Amino acid sequence: MNNKNETMLIDFYEFTMANGYFNSELKDKIVYFDLSFRRVPDNGGYAIFAGLESIINYIENIKFSQEDLEYLKSYNLFSDEFINYLEDFKFTGDIYSVKEGTVIFPNEPVLTVRANIVQAQILETFLLLSFNHQSLIATKASRIKNAAKGRTVLEMGARRAHGISSANSGSRAAYIAGIDATSNTLASCLYGIPCSGTMAHSWIQMFESEEEAFRVYAKTYPNNTTLLVDTYDTLRSGIPNAIKVIKEELLPKGIKDFAVRIDSGDLTYLSKESRKMLDEAGLTNCKIVVSNALDEILIETLLNQGAPIDIFGVGERLVTAKSNPVFGGVYKLAAIEENEKIIPKIKISDNPVKITTPHFKKLYRIYDKETNKAKADLITIYDEVYDEKEPLTIFDPVHTWKTKTFESYILKDLKLPIYKNGKLVYKLPTIKEIREHTKNELNHLWDEMLRFENPHKYYVDLSQKLWTTKIELLKKMNKNSSI
Amino acid sequence: MNNKNETMLIDFYEFTMANGYFNSELKDKIVYFDLSFRRVPDNGGYAIFAGLESIINYIENIKFSQEDLEYLKSYNLFSDEFINYLEDFKFTGDIYSVKEGTVIFPNEPVLTVRANIVQAQILETFLLLSFNHQSLIATKASRIKNAAKGRTVLEMGARRAHGISSANSGSRAAYIAGIDATSNTLASCLYGIPCSGTMAHSWIQMFESEEEAFRVYAKTYPNNTTLLVDTYDTLRSGIPNAIKVIKEELLPKGIKDFAVRIDSGDLTYLSKESRKMLDEAGLTNCKIVVSNALDEILIETLLNQGAPIDIFGVGERLVTAKSNPVFGGVYKLAAIEENEKIIPKIKISDNPVKITTPHFKKLYRIYDKETNKAKADLITIYDEVYDEKEPLTIFDPVHTWKTKTFESYILKDLKLPIYKNGKLVYKLPTIKEIREHTKNELNHLWDEMLRFENPHKYYVDLSQKLWTTKIELLKKMNKNSSI
Repeated sequence: MNNKNETMLIDFYEFTMANGYFNSELKDKIVYFDLSFRRVPDNGGYAIFAGLESIINYIENIKFSQEDLEYLKSYNLFSDEFINYLEDFKFTGDIYSVKEGTVIFPNEPVLTVRANIVQAQILETFLLLSFNHQSLIATKASRIKNAAKGRTVLEMGARRAHGISSANSGSRAAYIAGIDATSNTLASCLYGIPCSGTMAHSWIQMFESEEEAFRVYAKTYPNNTTLLVDTYDTLRSGIPNAIKVIKEELLPKGIKDFAVRIDSGDLTYLSKESRKMLDEAGLTNCKIVVSNALDEILIETLLNQGAPIDIFGVGERLVTAKSNPVFGGVYKLAAIEENEKIIPKIKISDNPVKITTPHFKKLYRIYDKETNKAKADLITIYDEVYDEKEPLTIFDPVHTWKTKTFESYILKDLKLPIYKNGKLVYKLPTIKEIREHTKNELNHLWDEMLRFENPHKYYVDLSQKLWTTKIELLKKMNKNSSI
Repeated sequence: MNNKNETMLIDFYEFTMANGYFNSELKDKIVYFDLSFRRVPDNGGYAIFAGLESIINYIENIKFSQEDLEYLKSYNLFSDEFINYLEDFKFTGDIYSVKEGTVIFPNEPVLTVRANIVQAQILETFLLLSFNHQSLIATKASRIKNAAKGRTVLEMGARRAHGISSANSGSRAAYIAGIDATSNTLASCLYGIPCSGTMAHSWIQMFESEEEAFRVYAKTYPNNTTLLVDTYDTLRSGIPNAIKVIKEELLPKGIKDFAVRIDSGDLTYLSKESRKMLDEAGLTNCKIVVSNALDEILIETLLNQGAPIDIFGVGERLVTAKSNPVFGGVYKLAAIEENEKIIPKIKISDNPVKITTPHFKKLYRIYDKETNKAKADLITIYDEVYDEKEPLTIFDPVHTWKTKTFESYILKDLKLPIYKNGKLVYKLPTIKEIREHTKNELNHLWDEMLRFENPHKYYVDLSQKLWTTKIELLKKMNKNSSI
């Protein structure tokens, strides 16, 4: 509704810093920033990377309008030269990133920006926003789809989303992570996600009786009939009326695909009793859809209790990632260039989890050649070379005596060039390709990593050279801690 | 970035229902839908209504494009007449609503749509989305601002927001609820919210030393200096360097307004020690800003421990309403018109909290004439008349023997006409007016309602006539429960 583009979705401190650099000798300094995250939401075993397409769209369309520039000028903080620079702003750096839909782990450099410091700061807010939101929802959706054990899952959270783009990008992230369809027509239309929806309780209330409401619906949409059976009383009214209407309106037309939806009450009990009644009426092919504040934990419990559910409708707990709505991605300086040499930079902290891993880095995944399963990730300095014919020994970066040696393995470089000198060099995959990639990614994981409770912890190790660089910088920092 | 407007942000089932009604004799049926919510997030004592401006913008700009219509046609579910109707869609009904920034309570009809059933369904998704998201953030922000006890609070959550509109509408909702400024330049520019921001840790890392980083900043922005002091060691390095630079760069210029920011570590301990060091150096006017996963509970604890903090920066826990990220607003059919008479409708449920209150209703707030404090809300049938000169007795709708009589009171009708016959009849207040309104609203509440733990429960009662209508409908429903 707003003609304003999103260029200005930038934290104000990016501008104060960028202008400060611009007017200093650091203006053209080339830097490396890493995008990473610190903890898997819900203490899960893995996360799904998403948001890259939004980031690319942002960079391709970045344009400060005259109004934006006037607005910035009004603060009397920025030099005219800087404002002029923004007027013609164009990203001219490099970006390397893992593909959307890739399984990622804490503290990995999943996306790296190499650019001058001014540009690197200007991009920060939008990169983080896109990565944090979409990876959050994709990760949650993946858990939910896993819990459903192959059953269909519908995303229907638009009404509880955190605004328009939460609904739209949320639907997209859920779809690439395996959710089967959305209720959100705009997201469906924008991204090519299958759309689904039939009736609300208001439909039932509008008619003289539940039976009439069902009948009008079944006549109008014989090929898209899901009857909402819990408005009055699921087992005494809803299911009997559904059976009657299906038998009278759909079976005579030869239609075999229909469903009932239960949106309240005890879903295990009601689905079991409904299944019995439907089967006794000969409607063994009638599917049962359930909804009502579902998430992966509730779905797992329902299925463990033997609830004969075919389709799950998931709303607010998916679209807001209710149990853990913050992804916690960060964007940290890892290196700078000086005389064409890359100088690693570290950020220290009292809290070891907040200490960054310095340098321009590569991210490798090690696959077992026989099982094709991912065994560990290895972060290396950008120019280290490995030979898959040689055994590869990795070690835990904290408990360094813990080592592991691979003899028969495949090493995959996970980050691809996305931008080179400001030019987009990456062909964006279709949403279906991303979804397929996510599915493949999950196939490479051990089941133990998919468990919700205390999942197997995946190894993310540093190469010997990188580890040594980090430790040496830490020692140096500690010595100079009153600099 | 997307030229598509948001008209299609509509759950698909609104279309299937709307087309079903459109092609039935219910097509022109006038209905009343209420927007309400069921539970205050975080078990708080009140919520803040927000989202009305977005709802109005949506309705004013609703326009199905040819692409939208082609997309809908592709489902082969909708009649040509319905598609043609959408092509010229215009809202022609009435809307009544409480003002943005109004304090609201569970189960109150805070916004009512009177329209034909087709239009009433088409609006549902966007109304809920706007109401749920923005009221959620406004309510959370109000709690956080209360906890800060008059101190400045900055919203800086854009990077952890759930997409673009979560960042923008979230900043706006936070501001109307009392937050003082945002880090999000786009929200600032769009809505006229003060913007703030100075430096990140990367600024410090980019210079040879912390002192140099501080010095360059203070020289560049003498009137906007907040020095981030926790990059290396807050007390051994950050504060001493800040003192040195402030004394050498700012005091000689006669500048008295500057601050330090602590973003990690124990904020009570570090703020106390920093305050001592700053005071001993004569910088008693140097403000202390803190940030790092703050929310109302942490802020209350810090202040209870005597932390000498002047300004709080609040990010992810505000913009995602982390502790309770779902508002739970619903949109329910309350009445239909038949032969120009209003027929109340109820939705029953096994779960009493999900039973709706039927009829076209007014929402009154009862103020004590002496203290000017809000005493209770009263929901009545739309045409009930009260005389403030007469005593008013209200009763608890569940425990009906609990009554309360007011002698000296003021009765305020909280809902205003927003649309009449599709015409916007409401003059939108400015954001500053809304913010002022929210502030006034909170002044009418007892302190006991602002408490985070077990706040005083505010009375929301039904008039005798409305209560009787509801009970009679429930009895009738129960009798016919196998309809």
